[in-house]
Amino acid sequence: MKLWDKGYTTENIVERFTVGNDRTLDLKLAKYDVLGNMAHAKMLNKSGFITDDELAQMLNVLEEILLSIKEGTFEIEDEFEDVHSKIEHVLIEKVGESGKKIHTARSRNDQILVDLHLYSKVEIKEIIVLTETLFHTLLRLADEHKGVLLPGYTHLQIAMPSSFGLWFSAYAESLIDDITFLNAAYQIADQNPLGSAAGYGTSFPIDRKMTTDLLGFKQLKYNVVAAQMGRGKLEKSVTFALASVGSTLAKMSMDVCLYMSQNFNFIGFPKELTTGSSIMPHKQNPDVFELIRGKCNKIQNLPTEIMAITNNLPSGYHRDLQLLKESFIDAIESMKGCLAVSDFMLQHIVVKADILKNPMYDYLYSVEMVNKLVMQGMTFRDAYKQLGQDILEGKFIPEKEISHTHEGSIGNLCLDEIRNKFKLVKQAIN
Amino acid sequence: MKLWDKGYTTENIVERFTVGNDRTLDLKLAKYDVLGNMAHAKMLNKSGFITDDELAQMLNVLEEILLSIKEGTFEIEDEFEDVHSKIEHVLIEKVGESGKKIHTARSRNDQILVDLHLYSKVEIKEIIVLTETLFHTLLRLADEHKGVLLPGYTHLQIAMPSSFGLWFSAYAESLIDDITFLNAAYQIADQNPLGSAAGYGTSFPIDRKMTTDLLGFKQLKYNVVAAQMGRGKLEKSVTFALASVGSTLAKMSMDVCLYMSQNFNFIGFPKELTTGSSIMPHKQNPDVFELIRGKCNKIQNLPTEIMAITNNLPSGYHRDLQLLKESFIDAIESMKGCLAVSDFMLQHIVVKADILKNPMYDYLYSVEMVNKLVMQGMTFRDAYKQLGQDILEGKFIPEKEISHTHEGSIGNLCLDEIRNKFKLVKQAIN
Amino acid sequence: MKLWDKGYTTENIVERFTVGNDRTLDLKLAKYDVLGNMAHAKMLNKSGFITDDELAQMLNVLEEILLSIKEGTFEIEDEFEDVHSKIEHVLIEKVGESGKKIHTARSRNDQILVDLHLYSKVEIKEIIVLTETLFHTLLRLADEHKGVLLPGYTHLQIAMPSSFGLWFSAYAESLIDDITFLNAAYQIADQNPLGSAAGYGTSFPIDRKMTTDLLGFKQLKYNVVAAQMGRGKLEKSVTFALASVGSTLAKMSMDVCLYMSQNFNFIGFPKELTTGSSIMPHKQNPDVFELIRGKCNKIQNLPTEIMAITNNLPSGYHRDLQLLKESFIDAIESMKGCLAVSDFMLQHIVVKADILKNPMYDYLYSVEMVNKLVMQGMTFRDAYKQLGQDILEGKFIPEKEISHTHEGSIGNLCLDEIRNKFKLVKQAIN
Amino acid sequence: MKLWDKGYTTENIVERFTVGNDRTLDLKLAKYDVLGNMAHAKMLNKSGFITDDELAQMLNVLEEILLSIKEGTFEIEDEFEDVHSKIEHVLIEKVGESGKKIHTARSRNDQILVDLHLYSKVEIKEIIVLTETLFHTLLRLADEHKGVLLPGYTHLQIAMPSSFGLWFSAYAESLIDDITFLNAAYQIADQNPLGSAAGYGTSFPIDRKMTTDLLGFKQLKYNVVAAQMGRGKLEKSVTFALASVGSTLAKMSMDVCLYMSQNFNFIGFPKELTTGSSIMPHKQNPDVFELIRGKCNKIQNLPTEIMAITNNLPSGYHRDLQLLKESFIDAIESMKGCLAVSDFMLQHIVVKADILKNPMYDYLYSVEMVNKLVMQGMTFRDAYKQLGQDILEGKFIPEKEISHTHEGSIGNLCLDEIRNKFKLVKQAIN
Repeated sequence: MKLWDKGYTTENIVERFTVGNDRTLDLKLAKYDVLGNMAHAKMLNKSGFITDDELAQMLNVLEEILLSIKEGTFEIEDEFEDVHSKIEHVLIEKVGESGKKIHTARSRNDQILVDLHLYSKVEIKEIIVLTETLFHTLLRLADEHKGVLLPGYTHLQIAMPSSFGLWFSAYAESLIDDITFLNAAYQIADQNPLGSAAGYGTSFPIDRKMTTDLLGFKQLKYNVVAAQMGRGKLEKSVTFALASVGSTLAKMSMDVCLYMSQNFNFIGFPKELTTGSSIMPHKQNPDVFELIRGKCNKIQNLPTEIMAITNNLPSGYHRDLQLLKESFIDAIESMKGCLAVSDFMLQHIVVKADILKNPMYDYLYSVEMVNKLVMQGMTFRDAYKQLGQDILEGKFIPEKEISHTHEGSIGNLCLDEIRNKFKLVKQAIN
Repeated sequence: MKLWDKGYTTENIVERFTVGNDRTLDLKLAKYDVLGNMAHAKMLNKSGFITDDELAQMLNVLEEILLSIKEGTFEIEDEFEDVHSKIEHVLIEKVGESGKKIHTARSRNDQILVDLHLYSKVEIKEIIVLTETLFHTLLRLADEHKGVLLPGYTHLQIAMPSSFGLWFSAYAESLIDDITFLNAAYQIADQNPLGSAAGYGTSFPIDRKMTTDLLGFKQLKYNVVAAQMGRGKLEKSVTFALASVGSTLAKMSMDVCLYMSQNFNFIGFPKELTTGSSIMPHKQNPDVFELIRGKCNKIQNLPTEIMAITNNLPSGYHRDLQLLKESFIDAIESMKGCLAVSDFMLQHIVVKADILKNPMYDYLYSVEMVNKLVMQGMTFRDAYKQLGQDILEGKFIPEKEISHTHEGSIGNLCLDEIRNKFKLVKQAIN
Repeated sequence: MKLWDKGYTTENIVERFTVGNDRTLDLKLAKYDVLGNMAHAKMLNKSGFITDDELAQMLNVLEEILLSIKEGTFEIEDEFEDVHSKIEHVLIEKVGESGKKIHTARSRNDQILVDLHLYSKVEIKEIIVLTETLFHTLLRLADEHKGVLLPGYTHLQIAMPSSFGLWFSAYAESLIDDITFLNAAYQIADQNPLGSAAGYGTSFPIDRKMTTDLLGFKQLKYNVVAAQMGRGKLEKSVTFALASVGSTLAKMSMDVCLYMSQNFNFIGFPKELTTGSSIMPHKQNPDVFELIRGKCNKIQNLPTEIMAITNNLPSGYHRDLQLLKESFIDAIESMKGCLAVSDFMLQHIVVKADILKNPMYDYLYSVEMVNKLVMQGMTFRDAYKQLGQDILEGKFIPEKEISHTHEGSIGNLCLDEIRNKFKLVKQAIN
Repeated sequence: MKLWDKGYTTENIVERFTVGNDRTLDLKLAKYDVLGNMAHAKMLNKSGFITDDELAQMLNVLEEILLSIKEGTFEIEDEFEDVHSKIEHVLIEKVGESGKKIHTARSRNDQILVDLHLYSKVEIKEIIVLTETLFHTLLRLADEHKGVLLPGYTHLQIAMPSSFGLWFSAYAESLIDDITFLNAAYQIADQNPLGSAAGYGTSFPIDRKMTTDLLGFKQLKYNVVAAQMGRGKLEKSVTFALASVGSTLAKMSMDVCLYMSQNFNFIGFPKELTTGSSIMPHKQNPDVFELIRGKCNKIQNLPTEIMAITNNLPSGYHRDLQLLKESFIDAIESMKGCLAVSDFMLQHIVVKADILKNPMYDYLYSVEMVNKLVMQGMTFRDAYKQLGQDILEGKFIPEKEISHTHEGSIGNLCLDEIRNKFKLVKQAIN
């Protein structure tokens, strides 16, 4: 292997292979690591391990770090393995010898756990906010275009009348189920793992309820082994929820791409939002929705990746777990982008009118006609026969006035009820 | 293709390929299909489509079918495509012409949706009950064996003392997170899709709130397109929750298999519950836990299977969705078996005493000793140095009394708090 | 758990959980188990463990069993755990005491390995034959319909002219890559694992080269640990190949479903081969292709299932491996069905003529026109500008004669070259 | 969405979302893009589209670009969407107007296809070389340590004697199967897609056989639609092969991590190659192998990711395909790192002697003893009984001399035969 002939020491080789890109990823977690440090310091002070003075000094330094993170000047230099080492280093450098006490009764294993729990909580909430925005955009569009009919398909065959009102609000109502899963993931994240140390607790008499309160966790993850086993499982839980949102967005994007095809031509977007071709003026490439679809499909596969890495590992920490960080943080960023861009694009959607005037769609009304005859007193079987005969003889003239009145139908979208349902579900984690 | 030369008509070929094993699977759903029929009939009566007499007759027949299902005599013969056709056939046969009215304002698409929603609700509840049983068994074992120490591992290297108290209750507390997901899946299942018909509603003035109440659904899935899009998504949501439980059981099983190995020898099971060999008397093959592990790993992959089948399909019904039924029902049955058998096996677990007396494990106590010196006033750094020196010089004598007092540690398992947390989480869906 | 209160002994519970449906699945493997027995017996005879007489008797009985398998009368009764026990039982029953010698120097671990290797070889060959049949059907259709143009899409937007010639033969040529993977899987299967016993060989001086020859294996899997590690890996290798074929069929099926939609209307099938509706006469539900698509997507997920079950298991046999059998055998059966039915359906495909006469597709020709001007000497940039201008001013009149002459283009399909390529690739394993 | 309030134009939003990190990834492909340009230019010259002078100028510029890539000075600035635009820009800038002719008769769709095919070929070959190095290291270790016995496990229970000779060479022989899949992927990559343009060919009379030869492809991917469908499928084929190698390395790493645990203590590595702890001197954390395991498990999931993104997309280009590039290139880089580091680590492995002297392992020899008695003439059944009785009465004294002589057993590793098999398989693609 040439690789090792270039004067590297073996330590270099191992170091290069093991370090990964933790330093970059950890910037996303730095804020939460500082918050964890603050709570831990306060607890150590209360438990008598550090003095009031030492605490005050530490908190000052930690506040400074927090500020540098907010301002974007915080860095993790190559000499540090990760954010935990870096922050501890700054503390010791600035506070002196007593800074070394910060690592009493903890381990990087529970530090990263705290970071991931806090990070997940904040990000899930942000994703819920973005989902809510999209939800309301969809409902507004449903209301605005509720009178515009669409063909409804089964087996990709035209089947019965649908409408833009139904189509937009279907995705809105589907998002509510996704919120249910985001809530579940939030609830799982909202448990404090701090104090589990390397996964087996510590002989120091620490106060885990205090840090639970200080960090704003609703619950304590009591059992220290359970806390450690949460690594990987927390990430999987969050990605289950992301996968749920992702499947809704991906399906909507598939519809959009199909409906923009010249063969459907149900919707369009302003030229600036699609990719065209000056030579093929008909081209309105839905790149944005293709990428939302692709990115959401990739996100949907993340639980499997986490399973592939963590499956069949016995309890206790394994270094493999570190590999989850990258895809996890990427997926969260990707999800937020997809939600924001979906919302932005939909605000510019152009809905085509008079789609069902095309005689190709006439047969959509056949079931309507049968139902009408039944409502007028004919038995279903006779009505059905008569229509079949009419169609066969070319005498079928569709009556295109449709009157669907039940809850959730074309004529009665129940948008307010759906809004209420969203509120009810969203409340669960507040 | 020889296959087609054997006198089959083309219809046969297509029929054989498309029918699958729906008839067998549908037996699991039959009960719910009858309940759906009853609610629909009552609603049709209230809406004026069938008379009181007709309703009474129908309900009688449906009650009879329900009884035959309970008694195990209900069958779906080859001449019927599925449970829906069979039940409708019996209705028409026994009630006569008016039986044909039952299919007014509905479609097999919303019938199967109703069946799957009701089935999921019942099965999730059953799985929660089985999980609760296992949870309590684990806590009982944790309490019983809380004094027995175990090595705690990181990187599969011995690291710090753990205990059977910690080990058993870790899996118990982990199950609480799984319940959170089961709750989420239940909430998603607890929405009535009836009335969505083929996925676009109906022109009949049906009363969906009435069937929602009659079927005991907490919520209406309002939007008919959303209701139809729930197909596949409901199954995926349930399997996310199953995958969550599965990952807990699989990890526990991996621990069990490892701990039964002669190289660990931490636990055992009565001879009747393991597979042995008269010639290799040491052999205590943990087949049951290997199968729990394998089955739970298979279950964990089911969301991916559902994604593989449903991904990138535009909205509206597709026949592909029918293929989800088999793996879905199998997974639920498999999950229940794994939970029940896990509980049964654990009730017979034999915990070995005095594991840590083996000097191989002495170094487990090194961190304890450092902490002790720190507690006695030495700085962490000095304590750490001294221990390192002692170990190097072979002077390290571990003090095997350990005293962990914080929440969730060896000496303070917080089993009651964990019990309370379970109650709190379980309440969510009642 | 009530389950255990019903008078079952613990042995029953464990047995019920562990037995699975091996007996049914093993019927598919029975033939290969007999062949393995025959080769093993001959080798034992040559190595001096059984006499010529004993061998003759054994072979007689084994031939009888083989016959009963062929005739479909072979059964594995409940009292036998699997096919291996059953066959050994019959041997002992009919041959007497000496029948017990058959299990000398082997284990059920290498028996099932041999069965799976032989089974895989036969099934892969059968799948290759079915793929070849489909390949030739596609090429025949390509030739037959090479003059019928289709719109070519990018981003689901109409882009450039394509043709049925291109479309059919594209899937044919794609199948060649799938054959490459089937070959690779075959090559991996074509190694004899017999003699690995429980995974660590045996102290008996067996002759593994002899059984390799007798069983028709091209190679010996020498290392006995490697042979045992092949369990799970063999299945995954075969399913990689199945997934490859599956992805081709699934994509083709998606095209078919789309092209049958009224919005495309490029192809059709005789009424008997689609699912219709007398009331919606336009309906031509492509159920068969939806099921091919769904089944092939399910197959594509099988490698992930195998990975989920086998990942992170250390070397050596684990009972989990037994769980692979069911999905593996199902997938092979399913794949054969999909290939046969695809071929059957395509033989009845109806290709619509004059699709591109619809003015909706006129812009397909814009690139052609630019190229033409370039060919006439204009620079690409000027030609491009002029066309853009023409289109803008509504002066664009497409010339619908197209002349693509290069290899693999509309006008030069290279069907013979593709046929030769198939032959070349197929040869690899003969 | 605040995001859009910051003064971005809509174009910015869409651009930011769609651009991804193509510029960075494309650096890996730049070399192949230049080679593709060279071949295409020569073909255009031969076909009469560019003059000899133009060709000479172009080739000069392309040679310069190639040099800058080799020297690491080549960059893709923000103003360019991808490597294709950048190279075309440089050509036009340096060659002038005639540089614009390079894009005649091609599309970025077939450019990226060519890049990926060429890239895959080179990388697969490099991976085969790395695999071969590891293969030989393993065989050398097998030979070196063939006399050192190990316990062989089934169900993680000690079962029969194994050896380091068997263990090392088992992974070597397993790698041969992985080479078979790498060959298959190589064969699929070794087909020229150039000339497929946007996926439907071109009306220009190009010479695809010429570019096939110039680029060193063994075969032409004739059908232009098939060539385009190769996008995604090529990547999946390569990742199937990577997953195959990955599963071998991951399993070996799991063994290594287990065998380094104090509970096994079969092997070790020099201190510099493991992560230790001065306070826990026993700690020898196998971080490198945990990361190899984790990275290889991640790679094993990549086919599923590709499936998730591409499944159910109809034929023709979709923008989603662009998303495959990142994970694909990452996986190849990761795989090479894992192979190289595995080899490096194994060169420093320390094999513990006298493992089986530990009486814990005595029962490993029970099967040996039975076989011995059988070899001495006792019937298997009697021998088996006697041993069972001896063990029960504590009279069992293992004879630790073992003599396995058959092919692939402890005493007859057949390392040369395995070496020959490797050669045979490797030849396939040369």
